[in-house]
Amino acid sequence: MDWARPVNPMTTLLTNAWILTLDDELTQHDPGWIQIDGTTITALGSGTPPSITNAEIIDCGGDIVMPGMVNTHCHMGMSVFRGLAEDVDDRLYRYILPLERKFVTAEMVRVGSTLAAVELIQGGVTTVADMYYFETEVADVCDRAGLRAIVGQTLADFDPPDHKNFDVGFARVEQLVDAYRDHPLVTPSIAPHAPYSTGRAVMERIALWSSDHPNVPVQMHLAESTLEVEWALKTHNQSTVAVTRDAGLLKPNLICAHCLQLDDADITMMSEAQVCVVTNPRSNGKAGRGIAPVERLRNAGLPVGIGSDGAMSGNTLDLFSQFAPVSMFAKLLGGSRKPLPAVDVIRMATIEGARTLSLNLKTGSLEAGKQADLIRVSLAAPRLHPIYDPYSMLVFAALPTDVTHSMVAGRWLMRDRHVETLDPVQATRDAIQIATMFKAEMQRIDQTH
Amino acid sequence: MDWARPVNPMTTLLTNAWILTLDDELTQHDPGWIQIDGTTITALGSGTPPSITNAEIIDCGGDIVMPGMVNTHCHMGMSVFRGLAEDVDDRLYRYILPLERKFVTAEMVRVGSTLAAVELIQGGVTTVADMYYFETEVADVCDRAGLRAIVGQTLADFDPPDHKNFDVGFARVEQLVDAYRDHPLVTPSIAPHAPYSTGRAVMERIALWSSDHPNVPVQMHLAESTLEVEWALKTHNQSTVAVTRDAGLLKPNLICAHCLQLDDADITMMSEAQVCVVTNPRSNGKAGRGIAPVERLRNAGLPVGIGSDGAMSGNTLDLFSQFAPVSMFAKLLGGSRKPLPAVDVIRMATIEGARTLSLNLKTGSLEAGKQADLIRVSLAAPRLHPIYDPYSMLVFAALPTDVTHSMVAGRWLMRDRHVETLDPVQATRDAIQIATMFKAEMQRIDQTH
Repeated sequence: MDWARPVNPMTTLLTNAWILTLDDELTQHDPGWIQIDGTTITALGSGTPPSITNAEIIDCGGDIVMPGMVNTHCHMGMSVFRGLAEDVDDRLYRYILPLERKFVTAEMVRVGSTLAAVELIQGGVTTVADMYYFETEVADVCDRAGLRAIVGQTLADFDPPDHKNFDVGFARVEQLVDAYRDHPLVTPSIAPHAPYSTGRAVMERIALWSSDHPNVPVQMHLAESTLEVEWALKTHNQSTVAVTRDAGLLKPNLICAHCLQLDDADITMMSEAQVCVVTNPRSNGKAGRGIAPVERLRNAGLPVGIGSDGAMSGNTLDLFSQFAPVSMFAKLLGGSRKPLPAVDVIRMATIEGARTLSLNLKTGSLEAGKQADLIRVSLAAPRLHPIYDPYSMLVFAALPTDVTHSMVAGRWLMRDRHVETLDPVQATRDAIQIATMFKAEMQRIDQTH
Repeated sequence: MDWARPVNPMTTLLTNAWILTLDDELTQHDPGWIQIDGTTITALGSGTPPSITNAEIIDCGGDIVMPGMVNTHCHMGMSVFRGLAEDVDDRLYRYILPLERKFVTAEMVRVGSTLAAVELIQGGVTTVADMYYFETEVADVCDRAGLRAIVGQTLADFDPPDHKNFDVGFARVEQLVDAYRDHPLVTPSIAPHAPYSTGRAVMERIALWSSDHPNVPVQMHLAESTLEVEWALKTHNQSTVAVTRDAGLLKPNLICAHCLQLDDADITMMSEAQVCVVTNPRSNGKAGRGIAPVERLRNAGLPVGIGSDGAMSGNTLDLFSQFAPVSMFAKLLGGSRKPLPAVDVIRMATIEGARTLSLNLKTGSLEAGKQADLIRVSLAAPRLHPIYDPYSMLVFAALPTDVTHSMVAGRWLMRDRHVETLDPVQATRDAIQIATMFKAEMQRIDQTH
C-alpha cells in the first residue's frame, strides 16, 4: 500500500520555549527554539532562533516543549470497558470475558481505539504500543489519528473473539503484517497474550515465526500474577520466565509487560536475553497485584518503559497518571525519597520508553535528525508553580490537560487542545452507545447469577 | 469582629445535574435539581424543578454536582516550597528548616496561602484543615478566598519561625482564637506539631488548655515515621500513641495526621479515644515512609479523611491526585481489587472528611438544611467515558481541571473555571518571586556544604 502523505513544505519554527531535549546530557534550552522541516527536527538551540524566510513561527510563550510521550503498553480497543465493575474481584470471569466473547467485533475495536486515540493525543502521548484483537482496526485508527504505534495482534487459547484457534490467529497476524509492513508510523507486531494463555508449544511456534520476521516486534504479558507463577511451576516445574526462555521467546527486544512476579534468577535471565520491560503501575496497583521491581530491572541494565494498560484496568491512557504511582512505588520499595528520581521517570516516559520499543533512533528525544515527535506543556496553571525542577513539576504536578499541542513526524495532531485528526465528540458518543449495550448485558448476568 | 457579609437575596436553582448527594443512602438524582437560599440548601430532588419567581437558574447540562471536597490536612503556606529538592533524602535538614528559619514571615505565609487557596478552589476543595506558622495570615486568606477552613497555629520546639518558645506560641494561638472565634467559615485551631517535637510536658499543657477551649479543634501529626516510634520508645518506653494518650491529648475528635506507624494496640487506643484520622497517601508514598492502614482504621470505627499535606511534600492540594494512591495502597495491602471501593474514597473526600473535622452537620453532603458547599464537575472530556459508575470515574479518571464551579455557603468561589474571590495570576507571580530568593539560598547552601 502507498502510505505517502503530503509533507508540509514550510519550515516550522517553535520559539521562546523551555526545551527539555531528553538527550543523553539532558540538555535544556531556555529560552530555546526548534526547527522542523518535513517530518524531521533539523536544528534546535538556545537564544536567538535562525532567520528563515517563509517559516511558520510559533511563539511558545515560555511553555515546556519536550518529546512526545511513549505509552509502551495499551489495549486501545478496551476503552469501551473503562472502569467496568471496578472493585469486583472476579470481574474478569464474571463480566469481561463473557462481554468480550459476545460483543467484541472489528467495529467495537474501532470505536474503542478511536476514543483511545483521542485520549492519547489529548494526554501528550505520541507513540503507543498496543495489543488486542482485530488489531488491523487499531492500525487503521492509529494511521488516521497520526500516532506512531506498534500494533500487536494478540494470540491466546481462551477462545478470544477474533480467532477460534491459533491457525486463524496466525492468519490475522500475517494479514496485519502484509497491510502495514511499509507504513512510516505504524509497525505491525505479534503479541502472544501470556505464557499460560499461549502454552509452551505455541510459544515455540511464535519464536520460530519471529526468527523469520526479525522486523516484527513481539509483545507479551509476563510474570503478571501469582496464578501465572503457579501455572509455570505446576506444568513445567520452572518460573514463567524460564518457560518463556526455553520456548525460545526470551530474545533481544522482546517487549515484556507487567513483570511483577520476578526473582533474582528471572531478572538475570531477562538481562542476559536483553529483553525490554514495561511497567503498568496504576493497573497493577488497582488490581492489588503488587509492585514491579523497576529499580532492580533498570539496575540490571534493562530499559523500562511506562504503560497505561487498557482503560478497563488503568482507566486513563496518558502517562501523567502513571508518574506519581511509578515514583511512589519505587520510593516505598526503597524506604526513602531517593529511588527513581523524577528525571528518570520522565526518561522512562520518553527516550527509555522509545528504547523499550526499539524506536529510540527515531523518537523519544529532541535532537537534530530525529523525527519531530513533540508536545507543548502549558505552564499557565497556578498549581504548577513555583518550579524548582521541571522534571519534578512534570511528574508530580502537571496534568494531561496541561498539554496544549502535539506533533508526530512534523504533523500537528493537536493545537491549542483542538485535536486535528479525529472528532472527539463523535468518538465519545460512539463509545457511550456501546457501553449502553454492555450495561444491559451486565444486568442480565447479575440476574442469572 | 463583625464577619457579616451581604447574602444573595435571590434563590439559586441548579437544574439538569447528575447529583451525587453523599447522604447516608448515597442518593443520586439524575437529572436532579438543587435549590439554594442564602447560605443553605433548602431543597433538592429528581425530575421537574420547582417553579420559583426570580430565581437564578443554572442549567448544569448533565454535569456532576456533588459536595465540595474536604482536604483534611494541609500546610497552605508551604506552597512556595512546592517540590523543592525532590528526591533528596536529607532535604528537611539541608534545605527546608534553614529556609524556614531564614525566610518564613507573615508575608511569605500570606503569599503561599493565597497560591494554595487558588489551587484548592480550582481543584474542587471547599473545606480545608490547615496547620502552619503565622496562622492568622492563613485565616485571613481563607476568609478572603471564601473557603471553609480549620486553621491551626502550630506549636513546636525546634525554633520555628514564629515562636522562640511555647509561651510565645500559646500567645499566637490566643490571638488567632480571639480574632476568629465568631467567624462563620473559619474555625481557629491549636496544632501541636507532633509528639516528638512538642514533648510530653507541653502536650499536657495543650491538653489542659484544650479542656478549657472545647470548641477549638486540636490537630497533630501522629505516628508519621520510624524516628518518631524510636523517640517514644527511647524516652518513654511506649508507643507514640501511648505517650499522646498519657499526656491527655488522645481525646474525641483529635485530628491525627499521617498515622503510618501503628500496631493493633495503638489502633485500639485511638478507637477507644474516638479520635479522627487523616491519611496523606501522596506525601507518605513520595517520602517512601509507608502506607497508612486505612482499612484497619476505618474497620475500627475511626473516620478517615484524605489530606494533601503541604505542596512541599505532596506537590498538589486537590484531592483527585490522592484518590488513585489511597485506593491503590489499600488494594495492595489487601492483595485484591476489593478493599476500599471507589465510593468509599469519595465518601472519605466528602462526608467522612467533614466528620473528621467535626463539620459533618454543616458540610460534606448535599441535603436540605446543610450549607451549600458544592462543586460542579464537567463530563465533557472523552477520557471520562464511558461511565459505568460515577464514583469510579471520579476516583480514577477525573482531574481537578474538570471542576468548573465551586460554591461555599451559597457563595460562588469559581464559575466556569474563573476564580471569583482571588487573583490567580497575581498569586502565582508573588510565589515565583519568593522562590527566586529560595533558589539563591539553596545555591549558597550547596556551595558551603
